[in-house]
Amino acid sequence: MQKKVTTEILQRLRDAMRDSKLVANPLDALIVSTWDAHQSEYVAPCDCRRAFVSGFDGSAGSVVITTQLAALWTDGRYFLQAAEQMDENWTLMKSGLKETLSVEDWLVKVLPPNSRIGADPFLSPADSWKMLSKALTACGHLLVATKGNLVDTVWPDRPPRPCKPLLTLGLEFAGQSWEDKVRHIRSKMEQRQAVWLVITNLDEVAWLLNLRGNDVKYNPVFFSYILIGTKSLKLFIDAKRVAEEDVHTHLSLDNPSDESLRIEVLPYDSVLDTLRECCNQLGEGQKVWISERSSHVLNAAVPKMHRLQIPITPICMAKALKNPTEREGMRRAHIKDAVALSEFFCWLEKEMLKGGVTEMHAAEKSKEFRSQQKNYVDLSFDTISSSGPHGAVIHYKPTQQSDRPLSTNEIYLCDSGAQYKDGTTDVTRAMHFGTPTDYEKECFTMVLKGYIAVQTAVFPNGTKGHLLDTLARMHLWNVGLDYMHGTGHGVGAFLCVHEGPCGISNKSFADEPLEEGMIITDEPGYYEDGNFGIRIENALLVVPTTTKYDFQKRGFLTFQPLTLVPIQTKMIKKDLLTSTELQSLNAYHEKCWTVVGEELKNQGRLEAREWLLRETRPF
Amino acid sequence: MQKKVTTEILQRLRDAMRDSKLVANPLDALIVSTWDAHQSEYVAPCDCRRAFVSGFDGSAGSVVITTQLAALWTDGRYFLQAAEQMDENWTLMKSGLKETLSVEDWLVKVLPPNSRIGADPFLSPADSWKMLSKALTACGHLLVATKGNLVDTVWPDRPPRPCKPLLTLGLEFAGQSWEDKVRHIRSKMEQRQAVWLVITNLDEVAWLLNLRGNDVKYNPVFFSYILIGTKSLKLFIDAKRVAEEDVHTHLSLDNPSDESLRIEVLPYDSVLDTLRECCNQLGEGQKVWISERSSHVLNAAVPKMHRLQIPITPICMAKALKNPTEREGMRRAHIKDAVALSEFFCWLEKEMLKGGVTEMHAAEKSKEFRSQQKNYVDLSFDTISSSGPHGAVIHYKPTQQSDRPLSTNEIYLCDSGAQYKDGTTDVTRAMHFGTPTDYEKECFTMVLKGYIAVQTAVFPNGTKGHLLDTLARMHLWNVGLDYMHGTGHGVGAFLCVHEGPCGISNKSFADEPLEEGMIITDEPGYYEDGNFGIRIENALLVVPTTTKYDFQKRGFLTFQPLTLVPIQTKMIKKDLLTSTELQSLNAYHEKCWTVVGEELKNQGRLEAREWLLRETRPF
Repeated sequence: MQKKVTTEILQRLRDAMRDSKLVANPLDALIVSTWDAHQSEYVAPCDCRRAFVSGFDGSAGSVVITTQLAALWTDGRYFLQAAEQMDENWTLMKSGLKETLSVEDWLVKVLPPNSRIGADPFLSPADSWKMLSKALTACGHLLVATKGNLVDTVWPDRPPRPCKPLLTLGLEFAGQSWEDKVRHIRSKMEQRQAVWLVITNLDEVAWLLNLRGNDVKYNPVFFSYILIGTKSLKLFIDAKRVAEEDVHTHLSLDNPSDESLRIEVLPYDSVLDTLRECCNQLGEGQKVWISERSSHVLNAAVPKMHRLQIPITPICMAKALKNPTEREGMRRAHIKDAVALSEFFCWLEKEMLKGGVTEMHAAEKSKEFRSQQKNYVDLSFDTISSSGPHGAVIHYKPTQQSDRPLSTNEIYLCDSGAQYKDGTTDVTRAMHFGTPTDYEKECFTMVLKGYIAVQTAVFPNGTKGHLLDTLARMHLWNVGLDYMHGTGHGVGAFLCVHEGPCGISNKSFADEPLEEGMIITDEPGYYEDGNFGIRIENALLVVPTTTKYDFQKRGFLTFQPLTLVPIQTKMIKKDLLTSTELQSLNAYHEKCWTVVGEELKNQGRLEAREWLLRETRPF
Repeated sequence: MQKKVTTEILQRLRDAMRDSKLVANPLDALIVSTWDAHQSEYVAPCDCRRAFVSGFDGSAGSVVITTQLAALWTDGRYFLQAAEQMDENWTLMKSGLKETLSVEDWLVKVLPPNSRIGADPFLSPADSWKMLSKALTACGHLLVATKGNLVDTVWPDRPPRPCKPLLTLGLEFAGQSWEDKVRHIRSKMEQRQAVWLVITNLDEVAWLLNLRGNDVKYNPVFFSYILIGTKSLKLFIDAKRVAEEDVHTHLSLDNPSDESLRIEVLPYDSVLDTLRECCNQLGEGQKVWISERSSHVLNAAVPKMHRLQIPITPICMAKALKNPTEREGMRRAHIKDAVALSEFFCWLEKEMLKGGVTEMHAAEKSKEFRSQQKNYVDLSFDTISSSGPHGAVIHYKPTQQSDRPLSTNEIYLCDSGAQYKDGTTDVTRAMHFGTPTDYEKECFTMVLKGYIAVQTAVFPNGTKGHLLDTLARMHLWNVGLDYMHGTGHGVGAFLCVHEGPCGISNKSFADEPLEEGMIITDEPGYYEDGNFGIRIENALLVVPTTTKYDFQKRGFLTFQPLTLVPIQTKMIKKDLLTSTELQSLNAYHEKCWTVVGEELKNQGRLEAREWLLRETRPF
């Protein structure tokens, strides 16, 4: 990797920090975070400001620039990459190490008393802003909201904000009209006496309006905000995007079914001014519902006495509870995905014998098979196609520099997924095309036992996903192993592959209880640096189950796998499985065969069908 | 139960709320909480202010009195009792029900704008005070700290603060001199640049000074505070308690081993003024370490810029990590406890045949057997001796009114423990002296499987106890059962039977990671209203274990049972146990027999030894 030369950029940024045309009073430091104005997990090129100023383009990192210093905070996944990409102007702050100061503590240490620290209030979630501001104020400093973004003023060739055509999603995919969704959300607002609901998350706008975009790679979203009033709707978006006839008609812009469903289209950039106007007209006791995970600037625009701050918006909850059409769509998407992966693994197995398949080649090929499936739109994230030691790099993505051939002596780990108009997929398999060692098999089997423990768990209504995390780890722990990532995340329906508000993690307890209709992944793993990586990941649907008793009539839930791709039995030490685990595995493979085998036949993909038949034989 | 007539008390309290000699400005409401000034779980009679004003004497509840209304908040365990004990002046607010307003919301609803709400700032933890104050301020009200306690002004026959003789604990029990403990705590203070540490928890003072008291029933603590400085120690306590020769000598009051260990004895009531004086003399950057779970008034006495607020004090951590002497003491205490319980259950079994044993009689008898053991001091909590349906009342304590005979047709649940100078015990067994039903056995077996899953769990260093909670429930969940309490709590060494900062719960995530030397209980259960209650509880020591591998050299932990009382195999459906579970149970019983059988022999308690032999036969 090449270091980015940042001396000039930093000089111009420091000039901007004291330019009276840009800031009312000179700034002693500037924070450049990784977020966009919608607090998206993945951002568009025009929002990669931290990468522009520092050169470091990993997925996580924050930057602080003072008049003398420039420092970047990132976590263990990226220490090496950051050190390689940043020039000598930069200090790498290794987050997660005990000796590393936090941004606050570092600022307090390096800045003179009464310093002014600037940040773009659109890019910081309100809760983070509040904490940082409090910490700085306690030490006599001041966190200042900049007007406009100072990085943008020194970035002449900044890419334009994406503005690609929108896709309308019919009832056959969405299952509910956007008008009905608005009515449902308004009923939730009414319960909380909220007269406005501020929606800033891109996937929430997309879900609500049954529209999809292509503004952020792999994430079918589009830049917009929406203000939902009790009688009105204000959509902030580039007007030409909704002027296209199909979108115009879909949104009934000219002839809404009733006036409360008339969508007022306003410029994307006018959201702040409009929200302020709306707040000026509030009566006593009227509330504006906004998540404190939304930007500081929009939160601050709502007077405190009118602010209803709840982290989870009603759209976030409604979106997580897939409706019957969405569930069917997700099922279809996973069947098609299994067809593509059966073809891919069948092809790979043959190709391995010839030799010469590399990680990138394999990733390309899996994409090719997926793209042949009906309603395929795109991948849902960068394919992790990793051979041998690369499998231990949890977020590995093969590049020209790193690409290496697959081998019959090493485990191949493939974590991939796609966006279909029916739904979003995410699946991981670790496979061996030669003879795995006993140790590799033992590790794989412990991971599998953890996967099965979660998948077959029975738990009462109201249980939060994080309470299931230990089920995924207990078998690994018994032999002294573990993995350093969460066990599962929510998955959108033709939306973001990482979706709140549920998940399975031993770190985060703020997840909402699991409910029927939610979809999460179950993906324990084991990684050995310099050697191999193992992960088994399926997407699971939360379903009700019947138990022998029903304590306090609470009702019990369990999971149903949506992913239907065989798990390589060659990797399993059978004697380490209990008979219940073995039954569960065989039942899973039987279902893979019945459902995906049928689809392979319908699609005439008979060689892959033979492969599937072999891979799903009772074990 | 009799209702307390509170009309006059309330009238006098309302007069006090507007008496200019007591309050600077009249109060519109007064909050009377359940705490004492040390935020103790159990309080002395002089601190039962909520019970005095309302008549309700359950273990949890808060009261608000306005000029017109009086309301009490308590949880589901106490709805019935509170309704029975309170007269018509009171409104019962059922906490935990959706429709019940919180104290804040209720105050906002019933008070006129700009109201003043009073509370004793000694009795409210700083974190609760802060939250309440914020909520009230947001609605235009003001939370006011009263000078002195208004309830005390209308309580003429309030019992005096207990002041019983102190017990000095030698090295043979404490394992470390108080001087060494102070040195260790000062090293922790130095790491945080703290020049003072404020200790308000009674068990923390007792642990630090190797002293025990008897001021709160079952809790061997004494009323005091301590301020630990880098070079000085200020103990706030009734002077005559440390004037006794043994205590005086123990604390080296006249001739400390070095000047930094000289204990300055100050009046109990002078802690606030002294803390303020200390704070006046702080230099720049000097910190005072205080837990935000300590009282608001002491937290507020420390200027914000000097306040180091960490919930867990270094004494709380040091106390939880039992030293080798404490571990040995806890082992001895549990062996003696097992001797007493073997005698008790052996006696009970015979007595049942004669008929006529009641819950209270049984509780008395178990106490009698315990009190015969060496270094017995007291029980560690009210014995839960419950027959049949009473077993389903989780905090049941038999009274004259409720007492009922044990029967060979019902499960008998006994949760009891003692304070020995060596250590504190807490054990629960559910037994049947006739023939249990298949259903009772099934429930018992699922509870046992949960108990075993936790006891035999292997987990990496750094794991928090709450991550083990699901292990205790998963088998019950599989058949649609559950229990509505936590799975375990820390246990003190001749201190409080409930001790922080570790535990096993699905509700609280603020626990500290489990570490070698901590002691917690493992106590899953199952309760069926009007029918029976089952709970299996052992105290467990956290110990290191050797695993086949050692991921990232983190090291792994497991548990070793301290409690050595047999688990009734008559209650177990053997076919529901795996062979591993069966082995674990048999190994446990073998240890019970080896260790406790030997002690029974040494004590010449041969009939109980026969009983133990029978109860620990391989199953």
